[in-house]
Amino acid sequence: MPEFLTLLPPAEALKKLLDHLQAGPVPEQVETERALGRVLVSPVTAPHPLPEFPRTTVDGYAVRAADTFGASESLPVYLALIGEVAMGSAAEVALSAGECMLIHTGGMLPKGCDAVVMLEYTQQARPEEIEILRAVAVGENVIKVGEDVEDRQEVIPAGTRLRPAEIGGLMALGFTSVSVARKPEVGILSSGDEVIPPGEKPAPGQVRDINAYTLSTAVEDAGAEPVFYGIIPDTYQEMYAAAERARAKCDLVVVTAGSSASTRDLTSQILDQLGEPGVLVHGVNTRPGKPTILAVCDGVPMVGLPGNPVSALVNTRLFVVPVIKTLLGELTTRPRPMVFAKLSVNLPSQAGREDWVPVALNFVGDGYVAEPIFGKSNLIFTLSRADGLLKIPADATGLSAGELVEVFLM
Amino acid sequence: MPEFLTLLPPAEALKKLLDHLQAGPVPEQVETERALGRVLVSPVTAPHPLPEFPRTTVDGYAVRAADTFGASESLPVYLALIGEVAMGSAAEVALSAGECMLIHTGGMLPKGCDAVVMLEYTQQARPEEIEILRAVAVGENVIKVGEDVEDRQEVIPAGTRLRPAEIGGLMALGFTSVSVARKPEVGILSSGDEVIPPGEKPAPGQVRDINAYTLSTAVEDAGAEPVFYGIIPDTYQEMYAAAERARAKCDLVVVTAGSSASTRDLTSQILDQLGEPGVLVHGVNTRPGKPTILAVCDGVPMVGLPGNPVSALVNTRLFVVPVIKTLLGELTTRPRPMVFAKLSVNLPSQAGREDWVPVALNFVGDGYVAEPIFGKSNLIFTLSRADGLLKIPADATGLSAGELVEVFLM
Repeated sequence: MPEFLTLLPPAEALKKLLDHLQAGPVPEQVETERALGRVLVSPVTAPHPLPEFPRTTVDGYAVRAADTFGASESLPVYLALIGEVAMGSAAEVALSAGECMLIHTGGMLPKGCDAVVMLEYTQQARPEEIEILRAVAVGENVIKVGEDVEDRQEVIPAGTRLRPAEIGGLMALGFTSVSVARKPEVGILSSGDEVIPPGEKPAPGQVRDINAYTLSTAVEDAGAEPVFYGIIPDTYQEMYAAAERARAKCDLVVVTAGSSASTRDLTSQILDQLGEPGVLVHGVNTRPGKPTILAVCDGVPMVGLPGNPVSALVNTRLFVVPVIKTLLGELTTRPRPMVFAKLSVNLPSQAGREDWVPVALNFVGDGYVAEPIFGKSNLIFTLSRADGLLKIPADATGLSAGELVEVFLM
Repeated sequence: MPEFLTLLPPAEALKKLLDHLQAGPVPEQVETERALGRVLVSPVTAPHPLPEFPRTTVDGYAVRAADTFGASESLPVYLALIGEVAMGSAAEVALSAGECMLIHTGGMLPKGCDAVVMLEYTQQARPEEIEILRAVAVGENVIKVGEDVEDRQEVIPAGTRLRPAEIGGLMALGFTSVSVARKPEVGILSSGDEVIPPGEKPAPGQVRDINAYTLSTAVEDAGAEPVFYGIIPDTYQEMYAAAERARAKCDLVVVTAGSSASTRDLTSQILDQLGEPGVLVHGVNTRPGKPTILAVCDGVPMVGLPGNPVSALVNTRLFVVPVIKTLLGELTTRPRPMVFAKLSVNLPSQAGREDWVPVALNFVGDGYVAEPIFGKSNLIFTLSRADGLLKIPADATGLSAGELVEVFLM
């Protein structure tokens, strides 16, 4: 098995692939209200401060703070009530010394006023006079112009995946459309003479295609557009032709090879001949996923995944998703969803190899317990019973029962 | 402020609302390949075992294990090679004692065979004879019928949100369509006389609508369908009419009240008069979000959220998302994405009140550091700078710098 002579650690293998990528995000303009989960291509800069006018954070009376100094319940200050600030408009008059105006949370401060006294600390003395029972400092209960965002401030960096908070922020600044990375097209090829479409009834020896669908949905979830090229017969001509069509059209191509050594060799041969520089990595020091192939063919990244459904899905996370993130120009600084859990059993592992073990998580007492789900990597339901993947680092020879471990949620 | 006389803890407030819900998930049939993120309404039971036939996990020779007993490199066993199992079909002949067949990973075991010897432990002696250099046990390198899933086994419980692994599992069993919960329709009403659509230019005193969009996207993310009823003027008649239209059509209605006490009172009054039993909770012991209103009107849950964008979004997570999960019939046993982080500063808090503090997470050394983002809850960019929300439990009077805290990712 010459292909496995040099098994690279997964991080190093991925770096080798990413180092060969030249393509970056391609911008497209979309409506902000449809942009959830999309990745920003250029930083957003505030076209004006936020808020644009000083606002009150409470219901109360707009005042000049200096007028309230010394006010207390036993010695109130009396201010002349000159009106009310209507919501959504500027006060018609400015405030002079000794005056106040009724104002509601979110309302715009009248000119001449520099603080707001909460309703609770006031009393209506007479129709046009208010008793102030507590002093306020300048700026108290007020949001200043630019306190949320200053004029010209960069508010969202390029590469941010937009969450509800960013959608709201864009709207607050009047950006009803936004420039995001076009979704990369990811070509998916299934192979294996034993593989049939899920809608058909398998004859003896046949199995339904799983990988095309787990990969498509995982790719979709990562923010790309899956394009399925069908189940390709295990011949050089047909595989080459399908891979070439996918390479010509897509931003990334994923081939799930048949499981046997001969079909894996076929994939490797094709990815090596389809364009320059060809195969970069053949064999990764990880379990599952040792036979993974990483290639770049005339600028297009290509990934050959093992046919076993568990290997295919785990290695999609390790190699396909990071390539998609790179094509999207996505910042990788946001934390990945994970939990700490206590391992329920001893887990042996081979030193030098990075292992990924599907685990179920159960909340027991005050924390999670991670229960490994044992099963050959051919068994798809191993993964559907799992909540996450536990990583056994390459430098460990195993993990002990009771040890606190990191589990990446699936 | 009579509404705040009894502030319920958030968990208790939510329970009160959920206890009044009668509606459960409404099934609809969708194509499995479009079902990512949807919630299963009934359990999936395997219509047949998986695999349906015994398969080899390696490339090698199908044998009778008994024939190999005692085989070693120095004393090989010789077996007659009677053919090759083609991928995707059953072997044409059965295996007799002293015979073997070439077989490829994933291939179907011929009749009469009960183990597979890996290619590495064999040698071709003559064209029709194989040297076996190592003994195998019965079942070695074989996946048995039903080893992944047994016939009639329940494989995915009702209430599961479908991930790529479940999509693959459904396909493996031939389920190309699946019964999932219809997406609940969530009516969203914005109010506030100062609020204008994001596409317009604010006059002095006006602000663009944020909450409609943060809520819509958060609701969409939770698996529901947002329906926007517009920005409603702050009058009883118009608010009542809009809330009534939404209640008649939607499965859940969310009103973001104006920020002032009077408009909050208006929301509460309307939610109380729109149907039975009306307002259940007015005021929750949490910050931000104290003025949150929870109601059920003739069977439809209604949530009144504070107008401040941070309060609105945090309380959407606390109250709106759990109602959506209930309407979807979603199991709540999957772990929520969170990380442990070291708190960077002391955080005071009021005992008895549950606080949610937006934090940025930075990976420093071997773990995350949580840096609170201070800012009034009127400031939307407070949240867009945050990676997650830190919970200060009601029984704490604060958290100390250096303490390990749980941060729920946003």
